Amino acid sequence: MTAARNLVVAQSGGPTCVINNSLRGIIEAAREYEQIGTVYGARHGIEGVLKEELLDLSAQSEEQVALLRTTPVAGSIGTCRYKLRERQTEDFQRVIDVFRAHQVGYFLYIGGNDSMDTANKIAQLAQQQGLDLVAVGVPKTIDNDVGDSQFRLIDHTPGYGSVAKYWMHMVQYADQENKGSCPADPVLVLQAMGRKIGFIPAAARLADPRRETPLQIYLAERAVPLEQLADQVSDQLRACGRCLVVVSEGFDVGDLGKVTDAFGHQSFGSSRMTVAQVVVNYLNGVGLPVKGAARGNVAGTDQRHSMAYASTVDLEEAYAVGAKAVELAATGQGGYMATILRNPGPGYSVWYDRVPLAEVANSERQFPQEWIAPSGIDVTDDFVRYARPLVGEDMVSLPLSGGRHRLAQFEPTYASQKLPPYVPQADRK
Amino acid sequence: MTAARNLVVAQSGGPTCVINNSLRGIIEAAREYEQIGTVYGARHGIEGVLKEELLDLSAQSEEQVALLRTTPVAGSIGTCRYKLRERQTEDFQRVIDVFRAHQVGYFLYIGGNDSMDTANKIAQLAQQQGLDLVAVGVPKTIDNDVGDSQFRLIDHTPGYGSVAKYWMHMVQYADQENKGSCPADPVLVLQAMGRKIGFIPAAARLADPRRETPLQIYLAERAVPLEQLADQVSDQLRACGRCLVVVSEGFDVGDLGKVTDAFGHQSFGSSRMTVAQVVVNYLNGVGLPVKGAARGNVAGTDQRHSMAYASTVDLEEAYAVGAKAVELAATGQGGYMATILRNPGPGYSVWYDRVPLAEVANSERQFPQEWIAPSGIDVTDDFVRYARPLVGEDMVSLPLSGGRHRLAQFEPTYASQKLPPYVPQADRK
Repeated sequence: MTAARNLVVAQSGGPTCVINNSLRGIIEAAREYEQIGTVYGARHGIEGVLKEELLDLSAQSEEQVALLRTTPVAGSIGTCRYKLRERQTEDFQRVIDVFRAHQVGYFLYIGGNDSMDTANKIAQLAQQQGLDLVAVGVPKTIDNDVGDSQFRLIDHTPGYGSVAKYWMHMVQYADQENKGSCPADPVLVLQAMGRKIGFIPAAARLADPRRETPLQIYLAERAVPLEQLADQVSDQLRACGRCLVVVSEGFDVGDLGKVTDAFGHQSFGSSRMTVAQVVVNYLNGVGLPVKGAARGNVAGTDQRHSMAYASTVDLEEAYAVGAKAVELAATGQGGYMATILRNPGPGYSVWYDRVPLAEVANSERQFPQEWIAPSGIDVTDDFVRYARPLVGEDMVSLPLSGGRHRLAQFEPTYASQKLPPYVPQADRK
Repeated sequence: MTAARNLVVAQSGGPTCVINNSLRGIIEAAREYEQIGTVYGARHGIEGVLKEELLDLSAQSEEQVALLRTTPVAGSIGTCRYKLRERQTEDFQRVIDVFRAHQVGYFLYIGGNDSMDTANKIAQLAQQQGLDLVAVGVPKTIDNDVGDSQFRLIDHTPGYGSVAKYWMHMVQYADQENKGSCPADPVLVLQAMGRKIGFIPAAARLADPRRETPLQIYLAERAVPLEQLADQVSDQLRACGRCLVVVSEGFDVGDLGKVTDAFGHQSFGSSRMTVAQVVVNYLNGVGLPVKGAARGNVAGTDQRHSMAYASTVDLEEAYAVGAKAVELAATGQGGYMATILRNPGPGYSVWYDRVPLAEVANSERQFPQEWIAPSGIDVTDDFVRYARPLVGEDMVSLPLSGGRHRLAQFEPTYASQKLPPYVPQADRK
């Protein structure tokens, strides 16, 4: 029997409400396999591997690991947006060196398409260099943009169900607010995340599956001129006196977002007006057919970390897909992403399987065109049937202490560093 | 024995998570007094009185009234920002006429300082005209700006505890996000409501009463030049690599908020950049002493309607103060506001009392200077001791149906209109 080899898990990209529950699934499942030794969390994602900053997750208390379930965001081990510098191969080589130095036989990468690509390349390089490494991907994004448009590679990504539930609730409340504060503020514009893909703004429809609310949804996938948007909002106002507008942050408003501040600065990305502001300004500029003004709300990062709105289904699935990834790793099934697939039939149920990392990396999911309603400003019942089960039936119960949310807090126990510090060629003088 | 007279309740100003629980307290308490007949809700606040749109709340089902507890915002009967046109006295006269026509003997006004003033004036006019009307105020604001700075008239307003809890949680999560996504985004700027008064941004401190987080709080009450803000943030970054900045929407950034859009428009109020944007742009413009950039988040109206974060204490008190107002009304104690006062001593407990409307209307609460820390960018432990009990110990339990939040929905049963439509002099041709 060969000695146990260690496992490294890293998180990549924007956080979600349930990303830490995948981490918990990994930590707990790894205990079941004697071939897996210590579980390390790479601090701040793959950068932690480069810097040899490996947090010992096996040394953490049961209690803290359990708290990961309801600890949103990636604060515990951190994430990164760092992309390994592929051409230089230096970064990749360093990853292999660090893994070798720490007897790492299993690498789990939690992330989106890019991360699946990275995991795949690391696996290939390891093989070329004779390092026995099993690399497995764990899907995660709020955008639900991993995999293919036919949902064959994955039905939905952990993280999406929770942001969908957030939007379901927020639109219910915004509708109340709009109804209650009308006629002073007859139009409320809400901007949703999801730069390129419309699953998040589409989830607004879950707030009102029977279409009783004057709700218009503007997706990046269906750009219309602001003139048309204003006409459609005006029609709604004439019909019922108020209108809720949900707009994707990726909705094209052309150059209208560009602004000049009092310094004449135009250089910072953040000096652009938000899409919601542009829409609000435009509506107020052309004038509404009723009294009052349009107002806007830009939901921030809270849509990916507002834990009280996390979906219980999403939490459960995030855990299970993490555990599945460990099973794949422990049984030598490298080069795959653990995935969630939906059973056909009327009820909602899923099973967990594997799909090749390379296939995921090379696919690009789009929001199904047939789920956009003919009006262009709504989604269909098929979308509702797809998304509704993902938000679950119950609110999550949060552990509090002194009124505050008890969040997982890890002891800073790191693997001792065995290599000289990493200084990439480009950074050397 | 005289016949029962009816009660009208109206809501004014911005909504809160618990405003409808005061309404529930009023509806349920009114049943206990035989001198109170039908309870009417004025649709969209005092405007509903002018328009004689009086929703019959006594006719609503038990179930719907019970759902008011967890129905945020004022969607059920609506609120308004309409201020009665005092000089013309026309509006006031109309209110009296409508009350007389509908045998209204009790008027309960849920709102802030202005509303207490209005309630008082209506009571005075009624008396002059021989209408037997008891007017009682019910306090409500998220800003906690009702009453006096010494907390003698009221300890805190219903609505504040819930927004404070929202901020407690959001700063906990933002801290996780900042910790997890650092070093890419080392500075996170969060903008809080409360244009003139700092109770809302101050509540950020509840997330971290032991001061373990690199948190700086900028109140409108302590304006500093942006240069100084940037220096302070830079110091924090040099000390620990990251910084959370909570800034009041009323923090003075001078002309820096003014922008010109691509049309050269500058006329809409909403073409101003938000305070958070200005701060983020400034920080990125002068440059941070570490890698990465500052990012901003502007919390929207969700801070006053994100029901999952409502404070259980706030809910309970909002109900009780509504019930207290009915007791005052039924026992002929007009010209008062029902109030919440805190018992001295180590534990937290309150009692409900009355204070003259005129005193409330003429007072202006300020955030106590002595609760601002010497650094100017923090609040003291005395503030924490004041605010901490208001957020409660538990999460509220929300009733769901098909995953969605079950919100109160009233039958549109209105009192039959008895007067000709109201057309103010100014609107007549």
